[in-house]
Amino acid sequence: MPRILVVPVGSRPRVDPLHDLADVEVVAPDDAVLPAALARADGLVVWDGMHPALAAAWTAQPPPRLRWVHTSSAGPDRLLFPALREHPCVLTCSRGVLDTDIAEYVLAAVLAVLKDLPGTVRRQGEHRWEHRTTRSLAGTRALVVGAGSIGTQVARVFAALGVAVDGVVRTPRPAAAPFGAFFGPDDLARVAGGYDHLLVTAPLSEATRGLVDARVVDALRPGAVVVNVGRGPVVDEDALLRAARAGRLGGVVLDVWTTEPLPADSPWWDVPCAVVSPHLAGDAEGFGQRLEALLHEQVRRFVTRAELLHPVDKEHGYAITPTVSL
Amino acid sequence: MPRILVVPVGSRPRVDPLHDLADVEVVAPDDAVLPAALARADGLVVWDGMHPALAAAWTAQPPPRLRWVHTSSAGPDRLLFPALREHPCVLTCSRGVLDTDIAEYVLAAVLAVLKDLPGTVRRQGEHRWEHRTTRSLAGTRALVVGAGSIGTQVARVFAALGVAVDGVVRTPRPAAAPFGAFFGPDDLARVAGGYDHLLVTAPLSEATRGLVDARVVDALRPGAVVVNVGRGPVVDEDALLRAARAGRLGGVVLDVWTTEPLPADSPWWDVPCAVVSPHLAGDAEGFGQRLEALLHEQVRRFVTRAELLHPVDKEHGYAITPTVSL
Repeated sequence: MPRILVVPVGSRPRVDPLHDLADVEVVAPDDAVLPAALARADGLVVWDGMHPALAAAWTAQPPPRLRWVHTSSAGPDRLLFPALREHPCVLTCSRGVLDTDIAEYVLAAVLAVLKDLPGTVRRQGEHRWEHRTTRSLAGTRALVVGAGSIGTQVARVFAALGVAVDGVVRTPRPAAAPFGAFFGPDDLARVAGGYDHLLVTAPLSEATRGLVDARVVDALRPGAVVVNVGRGPVVDEDALLRAARAGRLGGVVLDVWTTEPLPADSPWWDVPCAVVSPHLAGDAEGFGQRLEALLHEQVRRFVTRAELLHPVDKEHGYAITPTVSL
Repeated sequence: MPRILVVPVGSRPRVDPLHDLADVEVVAPDDAVLPAALARADGLVVWDGMHPALAAAWTAQPPPRLRWVHTSSAGPDRLLFPALREHPCVLTCSRGVLDTDIAEYVLAAVLAVLKDLPGTVRRQGEHRWEHRTTRSLAGTRALVVGAGSIGTQVARVFAALGVAVDGVVRTPRPAAAPFGAFFGPDDLARVAGGYDHLLVTAPLSEATRGLVDARVVDALRPGAVVVNVGRGPVVDEDALLRAARAGRLGGVVLDVWTTEPLPADSPWWDVPCAVVSPHLAGDAEGFGQRLEALLHEQVRRFVTRAELLHPVDKEHGYAITPTVSL
């Protein structure tokens, strides 16, 4: 039986159903036996985060038997340390599991801004009834940065509500519904001003780090809504902060941040048009079980030498091809 | 030229474009000339609310020439005082104008509850980062009370997001998309427990007053979400308050209330799972112009004896047939 090492960083997956399939070992990331366990593993599962001790053990001695690594994250960026990139193992991620909930969250965020629900909640705290005029979603235009499985589901729900949606992708291709058009990263600053909503779903890679930079932020329409559910460093938070504080934006909802948790002394907490969301967009009831179901399916495939789902392109930092054979 | 009396109660419509069509007189509701103006009017427009002085003048002397009354409200309930009900005039309302925005608001409200955006806003006020698990919208079930133009648009947007939607209508009929099934008012307490969301869009009439009563509230699922964008008295606010305070509901978003504005000493302000929304669901930027555009079209139709849009069934208190000829 192949040996699979499970490293629980945050929460811990249920591994009982795996014991019939593989020799499963669960080792905490800071456990002294981690290097030895890594050295004998055929497969590695990193659950709910990443830990520097794992990268250190791996870098000190690249795992000789390891053919496969799986992460419970949709975005594999935190696992792509240099020694893993260079290793011949296949890396798979939990693409697709969180799409529907993240898309609902992005919609909730944009609607909350347009209908000023944060303002209503704050007035309620003061027992204050104050009628205001809200904004419509139907008939607006959204630009989705990143058109992977999450970005495409975001586009789908916005299009269903009468929003014209375009996308930004690494390599522009002819667009198909729900997208009206695709642009490349280099077009972003030029086209950003044509949209009411900038919805960032992109994974983090060297190509996307800082993609939404000061030029893009400065090009946004007055009153534009910015949502980030991808990764914090894709957006230049300082440029966005300046624009938000200057009153140039309608609202900013960030669920991901360059530093998480957001430090208590961050100026973002007190920006009136901002919502500080604690990285929960995809984490709806049952998401743990759905991630486990994918893990169990992957282990079954690994053990039976069937095609693995959601292999990551280590150069570009996200899943591109649907499956891979080992 | 026919004489049209415009009574601005809250805001005031632009009447310049009407002067070519009719002899338009604008009189404040508490102006002493109101009875005389009413006595000579062929048509009456009541804008942005209702005023007791108008009902008093009308009741003292039913307007002898009046053939048509128009209200800027989607729900004509406030205009249906006895003397107007008994008068042979046709009453038309502003059906349809606010549908899209109200449906967006209902969606914003339900998503805000499921994703706990109010909780995120409150924690932000305390600079507190706290991850929680949220709830999914897709795969849930919603019951829309009232399947008029607003309720149908609500059903459409929820169905587009993967929600199974049924409706409650005065006279049950075979259902068609976006509704899966229709129930009658007498079924409500029996079926209410089968849904995750109870979305009230019904107009106020003698038949709908108190329709969502204590039996219905007590039948709701634990964690159910209740939204009211119809009229306050359709819901038994006290029964709902008891359920909300007992922690039996996931969230309550009321945009309409039995007493508006909600009194400063109302217990609702401090209910953690409630959002006190100040009757703004339909009031998105440009709604005044859209209501004016309908008014201008109606005046054109009245003057040229074309069919009027959205005549109200005075007995049932809402627009049923699409048009009427005078």
